[in-house]
Amino acid sequence: MSARVLIVDDLFPNVKLLETKLALEYFDTVAAMNGPDAIAICEKGLCDIVLLDVMMPGMDGFEVCRYLKNNPVTAHLPVVMVTALDQPSDRLRGLDAGADDFLTKPVDDTALFSRVRSLVRLKALTDELRSRALASRDYGIGDPLALAAAENGLDAKVLLIEDRRGAAERMATALGQNHTVTVEADPQQAMLVAAEGGFDCVMVSLDLEGFDGLRLCSQLRSLDRTRNVPLIMLAEPQDQGRIVRGLDFGVHDYLMRPVDRNELLARVRTQIRRKRFSDVLRGAVQASMQLAVTDGLTGLHNRRYLDNHLGTLFCDAASRQRPLAALILDIDRFKTINDTYGHEAGDEVLRTFAERIRLHTRTVDIVARYGGEEVVIILPDAGLVEAQAIAERIRARVEATAFDILRASRSVPVTVSIGVAVRDADDASPADMLKRADLALYRAKHAGRNRVEAQAA
Amino acid sequence: MSARVLIVDDLFPNVKLLETKLALEYFDTVAAMNGPDAIAICEKGLCDIVLLDVMMPGMDGFEVCRYLKNNPVTAHLPVVMVTALDQPSDRLRGLDAGADDFLTKPVDDTALFSRVRSLVRLKALTDELRSRALASRDYGIGDPLALAAAENGLDAKVLLIEDRRGAAERMATALGQNHTVTVEADPQQAMLVAAEGGFDCVMVSLDLEGFDGLRLCSQLRSLDRTRNVPLIMLAEPQDQGRIVRGLDFGVHDYLMRPVDRNELLARVRTQIRRKRFSDVLRGAVQASMQLAVTDGLTGLHNRRYLDNHLGTLFCDAASRQRPLAALILDIDRFKTINDTYGHEAGDEVLRTFAERIRLHTRTVDIVARYGGEEVVIILPDAGLVEAQAIAERIRARVEATAFDILRASRSVPVTVSIGVAVRDADDASPADMLKRADLALYRAKHAGRNRVEAQAA
Ligand SMILES: [Mg+2]
Ligand SMILES: [Mg+2]
Repeated sequence: MSARVLIVDDLFPNVKLLETKLALEYFDTVAAMNGPDAIAICEKGLCDIVLLDVMMPGMDGFEVCRYLKNNPVTAHLPVVMVTALDQPSDRLRGLDAGADDFLTKPVDDTALFSRVRSLVRLKALTDELRSRALASRDYGIGDPLALAAAENGLDAKVLLIEDRRGAAERMATALGQNHTVTVEADPQQAMLVAAEGGFDCVMVSLDLEGFDGLRLCSQLRSLDRTRNVPLIMLAEPQDQGRIVRGLDFGVHDYLMRPVDRNELLARVRTQIRRKRFSDVLRGAVQASMQLAVTDGLTGLHNRRYLDNHLGTLFCDAASRQRPLAALILDIDRFKTINDTYGHEAGDEVLRTFAERIRLHTRTVDIVARYGGEEVVIILPDAGLVEAQAIAERIRARVEATAFDILRASRSVPVTVSIGVAVRDADDASPADMLKRADLALYRAKHAGRNRVEAQAA
Repeated sequence: MSARVLIVDDLFPNVKLLETKLALEYFDTVAAMNGPDAIAICEKGLCDIVLLDVMMPGMDGFEVCRYLKNNPVTAHLPVVMVTALDQPSDRLRGLDAGADDFLTKPVDDTALFSRVRSLVRLKALTDELRSRALASRDYGIGDPLALAAAENGLDAKVLLIEDRRGAAERMATALGQNHTVTVEADPQQAMLVAAEGGFDCVMVSLDLEGFDGLRLCSQLRSLDRTRNVPLIMLAEPQDQGRIVRGLDFGVHDYLMRPVDRNELLARVRTQIRRKRFSDVLRGAVQASMQLAVTDGLTGLHNRRYLDNHLGTLFCDAASRQRPLAALILDIDRFKTINDTYGHEAGDEVLRTFAERIRLHTRTVDIVARYGGEEVVIILPDAGLVEAQAIAERIRARVEATAFDILRASRSVPVTVSIGVAVRDADDASPADMLKRADLALYRAKHAGRNRVEAQAA
């Protein structure tokens, strides 16, 4: 994946060196020589990844990284810290600030390119999701980015695939303080556990007895149920070639043995944050779609949903020669409630009405607010007798308890009239069935309300 | 990117050979020895890419490919045809059937792996989009997959970046039959043209005079405005290394010189279909989000949208000390229209009412159906005098022409009452402003309807 790499370093020769190296690998580059400039470039969306020097006058690299990772607009950008320091404590400070990796100067080219490519590819996978989530924000349906950036990366489920007992215990103990850890020594069994478990992060030893850990990684990356789970390889220094291979096919990160406890915690946490970031975005896009078919006031489905699905249910029932029933419910004298207690009281009654209906319908039924004080219920596989019984239960349940109107600090009696109809073999479309239900409702109203009437036999 | 590769071949040794090669590169494999089995595996979603033998008893590779590419459920799967045939006509048949590429047996490993990796990576980029679009189908909001699979890949805008005059002319003529072609010889200029042009496909010569065509490709792949446009490299047989490089960083396909006319047409068409497939999915996800804030009947925004945005507009106006106005519109005696001509006539009146309002509002205004026959309009930067003038124009425009009711083959006079209010420095929230507009509306109704009333000074 080609990409725009932002190089941040206060020394011009360092910038030039990295620029030249990256250009030879067909990356586009952009440069900044201090923290504030770097942040401005990131906020404008002008880069895909940041190579960040640690030691800079003014704002240092740790600060810049922390700022980028806590800002909803830039939190998705991978950050690699590049530094002459090689103290574990510095490394840890970078990772704690949210950095995705830490490279030591002089930078090894293989390490640099494989890391940049891997991070850029992983970012590209969520770019589409992110731009949909941004759109949902523009439509005013929540702010998923702010939510996602606030994720702390704790309390996760971690799977550790490791057959060295001592190492497994040490890591499990360290991770166990913040997470729930499952250790699995058998690779075959591990695949099953991973597929079932809903893990937030999976760690795989590359030195499993008689099994290629890298193959396990590739299988986890290609199975539908595990492909979105972050993977971390546990490697030996001599595994460099396999590490590059793994990063190339989509493994997210690696830890070198002997594993430093703090680095372990930091890297696992970064991966968990990354995964949850995507999960939040995915959930937000999904939720905004769900809103499109949901009535804002009652939380029932809306007329759009009913119109979209009724045809399918109807054809399905006709082809399988199964019954299908429709109920139309209309709150009696609803206008009086509105006129007496105000619109907000009317809204409250509608919400309570919807709740009571929900108690008497199944998940396979469609319950849709049809407009005003009218609700339509479609009951697959229900005949006339069954549909009448359900209608009668709802009618009785509405009448039984007065409806609270909090605003007026009182409760009022509410009743409902219901018309019932079932699919007829002669019906050309579901509209015919709905029309019969509507006529039955009309008769219920005229017969004094608070009644269930069924279509004429 | 690791992935599941489906190997389809009627000869077991061929299957085994490919399985072994791919496993060494950490791909997961699954095999089928005839067309119907292959199709079943694809339809179940058990693979990410298909390597398809041409000569098979029963259903041959061309047929299988055509079937997969015309089926909405499988159209997104990349298909590489693998064959012992090496006639341009066979190659063309494969491409015409929708194949993404064509490899000749014995398969060259570099070509195979770079191709499979590149196709799998491109697929991964739209997988997320596709699963969102599938969700929108489940919610009953259209069937984007069917629409996307039906795309024919014609009538596109193609940019050809080529400085060899003769070659450019030949290709432009061939492509010109189905597409609009722009030829650009200067690489710098080409970047500008590509960024502005909204192209469906860009072809880049790797042998531009004094310029690295591959660098141009990498820039096109990393710029925001061009990164989703399919790229095809024009290469010489000795460019193999650069081709692999290009595929690796995201170039979609390549053509070898001398360019075969039919292969040119087929490959361009495949890329255009691929791009439009993604565009349709992206559009569908976007549209379903838009539905969440749109009133189904009138196409105006809904109350959810108003509630989500009014707070922001209000705070913004307060902090910039700018005026902000609210109009509440209520159709006079709307119940009478419903009772006299039926609900559908009432709906028709509401739709016409919405259209007339649209003519008198700007894109920065919020126009939302508030419920029933009530519409709220929010006018940023409008003071009381201006808001009253707009309200008066709408009132007059509604009264001026009777509303057609097609169902009753007649037209009826309709009037509207409007309450106007503006933001006050003392307002704690936009609800205060809306309440004043509501009171003004109340006065308009009581003063005889068909009037505009503004809040008390
Ligand atoms: Mg420095
Ligand atoms: Mg064969």
